[in-house]
Amino acid sequence: MVIGNTCRFLRCPLIDCVVKPSAHLFTSSNMAKSKFEYVRNFETDDTCLRNCYIVVRLDGRNFHRFAGQHKFTKPNDNRALGLMSRSARSVMEELEDITIAYGQSDEFSFVFKRTSSWFKRRASKLMTHVSSQFSSSYVFYWKEFFEDQPLLYPPSFDGRVVLYPTNRNLRDYLSWRQADCHINNMYNTVFWTLVQRGGLTTVQAEDRLKGTVAADKNEILFSEFDINYNNESALHRKGTTLIWEKRDETVIKRTKLPGGEEMDVPVTNSRRKVQTYHCDIIGDHFWEEHPDVLENDS
Amino acid sequence: MVIGNTCRFLRCPLIDCVVKPSAHLFTSSNMAKSKFEYVRNFETDDTCLRNCYIVVRLDGRNFHRFAGQHKFTKPNDNRALGLMSRSARSVMEELEDITIAYGQSDEFSFVFKRTSSWFKRRASKLMTHVSSQFSSSYVFYWKEFFEDQPLLYPPSFDGRVVLYPTNRNLRDYLSWRQADCHINNMYNTVFWTLVQRGGLTTVQAEDRLKGTVAADKNEILFSEFDINYNNESALHRKGTTLIWEKRDETVIKRTKLPGGEEMDVPVTNSRRKVQTYHCDIIGDHFWEEHPDVLENDS
Amino acid sequence: MVIGNTCRFLRCPLIDCVVKPSAHLFTSSNMAKSKFEYVRNFETDDTCLRNCYIVVRLDGRNFHRFAGQHKFTKPNDNRALGLMSRSARSVMEELEDITIAYGQSDEFSFVFKRTSSWFKRRASKLMTHVSSQFSSSYVFYWKEFFEDQPLLYPPSFDGRVVLYPTNRNLRDYLSWRQADCHINNMYNTVFWTLVQRGGLTTVQAEDRLKGTVAADKNEILFSEFDINYNNESALHRKGTTLIWEKRDETVIKRTKLPGGEEMDVPVTNSRRKVQTYHCDIIGDHFWEEHPDVLENDS
Amino acid sequence: MVIGNTCRFLRCPLIDCVVKPSAHLFTSSNMAKSKFEYVRNFETDDTCLRNCYIVVRLDGRNFHRFAGQHKFTKPNDNRALGLMSRSARSVMEELEDITIAYGQSDEFSFVFKRTSSWFKRRASKLMTHVSSQFSSSYVFYWKEFFEDQPLLYPPSFDGRVVLYPTNRNLRDYLSWRQADCHINNMYNTVFWTLVQRGGLTTVQAEDRLKGTVAADKNEILFSEFDINYNNESALHRKGTTLIWEKRDETVIKRTKLPGGEEMDVPVTNSRRKVQTYHCDIIGDHFWEEHPDVLENDS
Repeated sequence: MVIGNTCRFLRCPLIDCVVKPSAHLFTSSNMAKSKFEYVRNFETDDTCLRNCYIVVRLDGRNFHRFAGQHKFTKPNDNRALGLMSRSARSVMEELEDITIAYGQSDEFSFVFKRTSSWFKRRASKLMTHVSSQFSSSYVFYWKEFFEDQPLLYPPSFDGRVVLYPTNRNLRDYLSWRQADCHINNMYNTVFWTLVQRGGLTTVQAEDRLKGTVAADKNEILFSEFDINYNNESALHRKGTTLIWEKRDETVIKRTKLPGGEEMDVPVTNSRRKVQTYHCDIIGDHFWEEHPDVLENDS
Repeated sequence: MVIGNTCRFLRCPLIDCVVKPSAHLFTSSNMAKSKFEYVRNFETDDTCLRNCYIVVRLDGRNFHRFAGQHKFTKPNDNRALGLMSRSARSVMEELEDITIAYGQSDEFSFVFKRTSSWFKRRASKLMTHVSSQFSSSYVFYWKEFFEDQPLLYPPSFDGRVVLYPTNRNLRDYLSWRQADCHINNMYNTVFWTLVQRGGLTTVQAEDRLKGTVAADKNEILFSEFDINYNNESALHRKGTTLIWEKRDETVIKRTKLPGGEEMDVPVTNSRRKVQTYHCDIIGDHFWEEHPDVLENDS
Repeated sequence: MVIGNTCRFLRCPLIDCVVKPSAHLFTSSNMAKSKFEYVRNFETDDTCLRNCYIVVRLDGRNFHRFAGQHKFTKPNDNRALGLMSRSARSVMEELEDITIAYGQSDEFSFVFKRTSSWFKRRASKLMTHVSSQFSSSYVFYWKEFFEDQPLLYPPSFDGRVVLYPTNRNLRDYLSWRQADCHINNMYNTVFWTLVQRGGLTTVQAEDRLKGTVAADKNEILFSEFDINYNNESALHRKGTTLIWEKRDETVIKRTKLPGGEEMDVPVTNSRRKVQTYHCDIIGDHFWEEHPDVLENDS
Repeated sequence: MVIGNTCRFLRCPLIDCVVKPSAHLFTSSNMAKSKFEYVRNFETDDTCLRNCYIVVRLDGRNFHRFAGQHKFTKPNDNRALGLMSRSARSVMEELEDITIAYGQSDEFSFVFKRTSSWFKRRASKLMTHVSSQFSSSYVFYWKEFFEDQPLLYPPSFDGRVVLYPTNRNLRDYLSWRQADCHINNMYNTVFWTLVQRGGLTTVQAEDRLKGTVAADKNEILFSEFDINYNNESALHRKGTTLIWEKRDETVIKRTKLPGGEEMDVPVTNSRRKVQTYHCDIIGDHFWEEHPDVLENDS
């Protein structure tokens, strides 16, 4: 344990140096506290506007460096993506008012339902709780994903809060993140294919891709490396979507029958669990399949 | 790794199902992103008022339960306090604009200097970074403090931001937290002494202390248990204060002399390091000893 | 004109006392300005969340006293209500993004359309502009409504901004204000009828109404004074709603015909004008009749 | 009075169309109100940070056009400046926590003392009250300053709130505004002298001044028009500063003497009054002469 410096003061003002502690010192410390309490009024109210979706987005800090130091594979490291997902699930299980979360690369967005009253909708509480739970989970579950690779130092994720008044706005937000995932992953896929299989240096690969649009990149993959981008892993192309779903769970319970005998009886319960998807969430299909994720605008 | 559900869609809207990927799909995904980007404008600016101290305070979530499950000793667990301190140091080393931090029990306050421009003074970034770094450090350093006691689940800390315009206001804030430490620790010390050494049940101890002022509590300790509260550990009575200090460090360096010989030469460098104190910070003494912590009001 | 005190300084620091003004003084004043300009950064951004209705509500300050001093008739003064309406119209004509305004008693609410980008949606600009325009109009148009009654001093109205994310929320806001109008007007109608026609003192009337519900009040009016509340003025019962409407306006224009003759020709133009209603806006009817007032939620 | 449209509805939902009003309609309107009242929770708290100076600055809207239409003299119109001052005084007399106000051209800044708790420091209330009182006063006192010139339409002023944590910051804010006054007034003085006395067109005058620094402008005035800028009106060069001052006021009171006779007795009272200055407020002199305007930082 870190042991702090000993006090170098001869006289510590509050209560330190009396032999038999005298009464007035202690009453004054109580009074002292009430004298200082006015500082609480400097806190400002940061309640989120009612009836809006509250999105908390986390981004890894200096994850480029972190990925290098922990030898993440390129262009995607499934261990890292799995750990992100696991940490996000830990957040959702702690904060049940999160109805959907979407992550890609080193970022994750959490959507609180529009009628949520968690922490009285205080933005600071919501975002710090999410970033804290996510970060402690990331370290806690590290070994499950990175068996041989030790964690060298505690990483950090910064966060922000954004409000969206309508379902359309919220879906456009999530579409924005998934379109970002798509564009980045396509770039990275071609870039690292050129380097790893095409033998280009990273500088050459960068040059080669300068000015290309998505169709050009796709063509490079297809004609030069026989890769159909659409057959690449959905996890990489679509990112990860987490939602709550009711699932039936059947367990076998030993039960006593009226006649006194015992028997194994299957008991089915419906339980809410976090489910993971790697699908398109831009189109309507996903939302039609999961009508409970969004609340009605009116 | 958690593997998500496979897509149950026959037709994934964006790009999924073509055999040879066609160009227009990819350009449209690029266009799609720009179409969604308007959602960025829903972010609001939360820049902290200039020339004010920015305080980020963290509080452990459900730490009463957490302490029980991890068998914290009563009334204070030095391992837990040490881990809090270690995590706070990790925050300070990452965020050099923090000039002083103060912690007690399961809370820690971090003070950014009033002229700081870290993260452009954006409140959300500051508080999430602090809460994230603290939380990941707490798990990361757990084993250093709790050798035999495994961490059962990832804990979380919520945070808030408060601004203080003057040195007086800031010192009153810190005094408020230290007065709180004093009052709680005195209560807990007497309470657990009555239980652990006096043989009272927790209910009896609570009854015994109902309505007592600090002087009464002190008298109980002194006359019944021969304890002078002022001789109790400063760590418990005063909490933990962290500040930056320049310290001379002398290392021995093997150096080549002009004649070709080698010699061990002591080299002294001045290095800024986080130092730990368990002292009164309510009175003027501490601040006179460390005049660099606060900036001038004008 | 108010003439200020003459300077009592022998030496005015900036530029006052030289006989022939010397160059360096003036360049330094320019530099001085740039030295001070950092204070602009203390302004904070108060942009209203996008895609929400922005409501600015004004309330008269100390209007109880103001009404007494200017001899407003009880329970309603049509001159005062007309002046409020006229001032509100002046606000709407200045700020075209206001789609609907609703007023009663000494308050008026103005609703900016959800996609408005007036003043970049800065809350401070929106509310001060509304309160300023309303207040100057109130004094400017006073004489049109209060011919014999001079305005004794300049009145003031304070304001606030509230955001509503959905059409339902906005309509509920307006319903809340109209329900308030209804309840107050019914109370005031009975109260002043008891005083003015029933001969009660104001204290007696207050006592008589203590604990009565709306139905009781209605019964008093009907059985004791033969008044059917529903036949009372809609202006008083429903307040005032202002919206923009396209109206055809036909003007006679003297026009030259091909043959050289002149002729009076009626020319019809469609013009957007502020229209005034005293109707129920709680039910659906009004909104079905005026579908352009609200924008679609999605 | 503007008479609104009559209701075109056959059935007004709330209470309109019954012959004998029935009880349930009225109780339901009361319930209706409570059903809508949730909309109050959409209001956000905009309390100003404690212990900071609160500055409300007003700016005339489209005053270039307004000045032209009301034939303001160039470069300064003393009637207009006097009316601004008079309106500012009206604001100060209504809001006693304003300790100093500074105005120039079509703008005025009002400084609330740092410990003020007017309107619970709610930014929206403070700025709308100031802008409203100023605007109604501007119209109310117009005739006192613009005798022959009728006011053509109600003008408006928008406002903003800025907080300053220290005396230095506040003084720098006021210095910034006075430096702005100085620079603009010097430019305008030379510009209009070139036009009005030098016979230049406005385009020529603009060209002549392009790229000149303050010293050049001063030289033009001095050598070409024999004008020493420093002898120009302090009102124009320094703007207007309003502060509260205690002044002794002596009134003659008819008093009954013990012997029954009456006599005129002079009675002196000390009264707080708004005083007007046209001085430098950038240097220390003004602040040393008026030490009560600012509160101590600590």
